Amino acid sequence: LDKTSLHNVPGFRSGGISSGIKKSGAPDLALILSDIDAIAAGLFTKNRVKAAPVLLSMKRIRGGRVRGIIVNSGNANACTGDRGRKDAEAMASSAEEALGIRKGSILTASTGVIGVPLPVEKITGNIKRLCSSLRHNGLKDAGKAIMTTDAFPKSASIRVPIGGKTVTVSGIAKGAGMICPQMATMLAFILTDAKISPPVLKKALKEAAEDTFNSINVDNDTSTNDAVIALANGASGCAEIKAPQKGYNAFRDALKSVCLRLALLIVKDGEGATKAIRITVKGGRSASDARRAARTVAQSYLVKAAFFGGDPNWGRILAALGRSGARIREDRVRVSFNSVDVVRDGLDTGREKEAARAIREKAEVIVDIDLGIGRSSSTVWTSDLTYDYVRINSAYRT
Amino acid sequence: LDKTSLHNVPGFRSGGISSGIKKSGAPDLALILSDIDAIAAGLFTKNRVKAAPVLLSMKRIRGGRVRGIIVNSGNANACTGDRGRKDAEAMASSAEEALGIRKGSILTASTGVIGVPLPVEKITGNIKRLCSSLRHNGLKDAGKAIMTTDAFPKSASIRVPIGGKTVTVSGIAKGAGMICPQMATMLAFILTDAKISPPVLKKALKEAAEDTFNSINVDNDTSTNDAVIALANGASGCAEIKAPQKGYNAFRDALKSVCLRLALLIVKDGEGATKAIRITVKGGRSASDARRAARTVAQSYLVKAAFFGGDPNWGRILAALGRSGARIREDRVRVSFNSVDVVRDGLDTGREKEAARAIREKAEVIVDIDLGIGRSSSTVWTSDLTYDYVRINSAYRT
Repeated sequence: LDKTSLHNVPGFRSGGISSGIKKSGAPDLALILSDIDAIAAGLFTKNRVKAAPVLLSMKRIRGGRVRGIIVNSGNANACTGDRGRKDAEAMASSAEEALGIRKGSILTASTGVIGVPLPVEKITGNIKRLCSSLRHNGLKDAGKAIMTTDAFPKSASIRVPIGGKTVTVSGIAKGAGMICPQMATMLAFILTDAKISPPVLKKALKEAAEDTFNSINVDNDTSTNDAVIALANGASGCAEIKAPQKGYNAFRDALKSVCLRLALLIVKDGEGATKAIRITVKGGRSASDARRAARTVAQSYLVKAAFFGGDPNWGRILAALGRSGARIREDRVRVSFNSVDVVRDGLDTGREKEAARAIREKAEVIVDIDLGIGRSSSTVWTSDLTYDYVRINSAYRT
Repeated sequence: LDKTSLHNVPGFRSGGISSGIKKSGAPDLALILSDIDAIAAGLFTKNRVKAAPVLLSMKRIRGGRVRGIIVNSGNANACTGDRGRKDAEAMASSAEEALGIRKGSILTASTGVIGVPLPVEKITGNIKRLCSSLRHNGLKDAGKAIMTTDAFPKSASIRVPIGGKTVTVSGIAKGAGMICPQMATMLAFILTDAKISPPVLKKALKEAAEDTFNSINVDNDTSTNDAVIALANGASGCAEIKAPQKGYNAFRDALKSVCLRLALLIVKDGEGATKAIRITVKGGRSASDARRAARTVAQSYLVKAAFFGGDPNWGRILAALGRSGARIREDRVRVSFNSVDVVRDGLDTGREKEAARAIREKAEVIVDIDLGIGRSSSTVWTSDLTYDYVRINSAYRT
C-alpha cells in the first residue's frame, strides 16, 4: 500500500469541478470514466430510506457493466420523491449525452443535506466543463469534489502483481459523520485495471468491505446515500481473476488494503475527532459475540467521551461489554489501553495514571479486551466524542 | 399526581446523610425503613455485568418481604469482585444490626464510579448517625443522598382512593447519564401503604415501568447498577389489591403516574440537556415496528444534536426511521415538530423557518411521526446532545 501517491489506473479518467451547488464555491461535482465498458460491483446502504441516486445505481449496476460514475456533493437528493428520481436520471443522462456514450451506462451518487430538491440545472449546465476536466491523473480532483464535512480528501492506492501483470487498485472516499458499521456508510469509488467478471468482483468487494468499511463507526448512524462502487476495466492485460485461485486472493487482499486505508481515513476524520480508537476483542465464545462486544464498546458515547478527556475509564468499557449481550467471564476479563493493563481478572490493576498518560500522549488509542471465555476475536475502529462533534452537528444547516 | 409536595407514606421513615464517600461532602448515604415487613418487588439492570449490591438485592427480594433499603452514591461498587460482594453484605448487615432487625431484611443499592472498591468503613462508621436521621418526612433527604451527576433531586407522589381507603404512592429517583430504554436504567425507590401480594406488586411494577422508565433514553447506555424497587407495607388498611380487579387498575395507574413523573424528571435532567424531546410514532405496521422506529430516532445523536442547535433537520429523522428496520411508506410519511408539519407524503413542506422558531421557543420538543403504513403507535422520551454532555462525560473522573 502506497500511502503517499495515488496511482493512475490505466484506462480511467476522472475530474472534479465547482458547479455552484455548494454555496462556498468549493468543488462539488465529480466524474469518473472508463475508456471502455468496465465490470462494476457495488454495495449500497441498508437504510430503508434510500436516496434517488442510490436506487438508480442499484438498478443500473445489475447489468454488471458501466462506463462511469457522476457524483455531486452538497445535496443528497434523498427524500425528494418523484422529482428526485427524475433529477438523478437527468444527472446521468446529461453526462451520457455530453460524452456520446450508451444511455444507462453512468452510475450516480449524491451526498449532502437530505430533503432539499437537487439543483440539477447546476449539474446539467456545467456538464461540458465537467467532461473537459477528465484527466488520467484526475482521481484526486474527483476525491476533493465529493467532500462534505470531511476535513481532508481521502484516497488509497496499491500496485500488485497478478496473473503475470502489474494490477493497480486506486480508490477515493468521503465520510466523516453518519458513519456506522452497517454497509455502506459513506461513499467510496475504487478503480482497477484488473480483468475480472461481475460476480467475482462483487465477491471480492463484499469480503474486502466486511473488515474495513463495515468495521468502522463514528456515530451509529447509517445514511440514506452510502455506496461503495468498484470498477474494473481489464486494461492491465492480466489473466482473468477467478475465485478461488491464488490470483483471486492477491486481488481481494489488494482491494482490502485499499478499503482499509480509506476506512481508517474516515475514522481519523470522524466529525470533531481528536483520536482514532481501535478496539480489539478476543476470547469471545463466538465470532458474533466478539463482534457484538467490540461494536457495543465502539458505539458507547460514554466510552468515546472518556477518551476525548484522556480518562482511562474502564468501568464504562465493562458496562458496555455487559450490555452488549456477549457472553463474558467477569472474573477473567482483561482490558488494556495502549498496552497498559487496566483490568485483570475483572479487577482494577491500579495503573490508572500510567494509562491516562498512554492515552493522552497518542493520537491513536489501542484498546485490547479479553472476554475470557473462548477463542473468537473481532476488531472495529471508532473516534472520540468531542465538543466539535456537537458543534458540527448542531450547526450543520442553520 | 401532586407535582409540588412529596407525601409521607404511613409506616415508612427515611433519611439521608453525608458519610464522606463523596469528596465534596455532599449527602451520599440514604436509608428507607418500613416499620413492619413490607412486600417488595424490583426490576434490575439487564446488563450482564451487575454490581454487587444489585446481585445482593436480587437474591434478597425473592422472598418478597423486606424492611428497607440502604443506598450510597459516589461509588457504584461494580466490578469490584469478592471484596465488592462482602462490602455490599457489610453495608446491609451494619444497618440491620444498628436497627436490631432480621438479617437479610435490608436491600442494597449503590451508584457512582465503577471499579473502585467501596470505602465501606465510611458507611459502617456512620450507620448510627444514618439511623438517627430516619424521619416520616425524610424521603426528600434520601432523594438528595442518592444523587450523582443529577442537577436536582427527583420525586413524585400521588394519593388515590383504593379499596375504601386513601392509598399513598411516593417515589424518589436518580439518573442523568447511562440512561437507555432497557430496564432498569437508573435508581428509583417507590413506597406505598397499599396492601398487595408480592406477585401482584411485581406485575403492577412491570406494567408501570414499560411505558415510563423503559421508554426514556439519554445516551443509549445501560448501567451496571440500575434498579427500581417498590415497597408496600399495607399501612393504609385498604382491602388487598388483587389482579385483575378495579382496585388493581387504580393502583397500577397511580404507580405508573409516579413512575412517569420520575422518568420525565430524569430526561429533563439528562446530562447537559437543554431540551426534553417526546417522540411519538404512529401508523406503524406493528407495535414493535412503532417502538423500534421511535427508539432509533431517540438514539440518534445527529437528531439530538440538531435539536440542541434548534435545527428542524427532518432528514436525520427520516434517515433514522430508515435504518430502524421498521416498515415505512416513504411516500406517506409525515413529521411535525411542536405541531408544525415539516414533512408530508415524504416531502418537505417548506415550513422550515416556522419549525425552527417552534423548536427554539420551547424547552420541550414534541416530535410526531406517522409511518403511513398501519395503526400501531409508541412514545419515547429523550434529551438533546449538547456541549455540556461532552464536558460532563469527558471530565467525570479526572
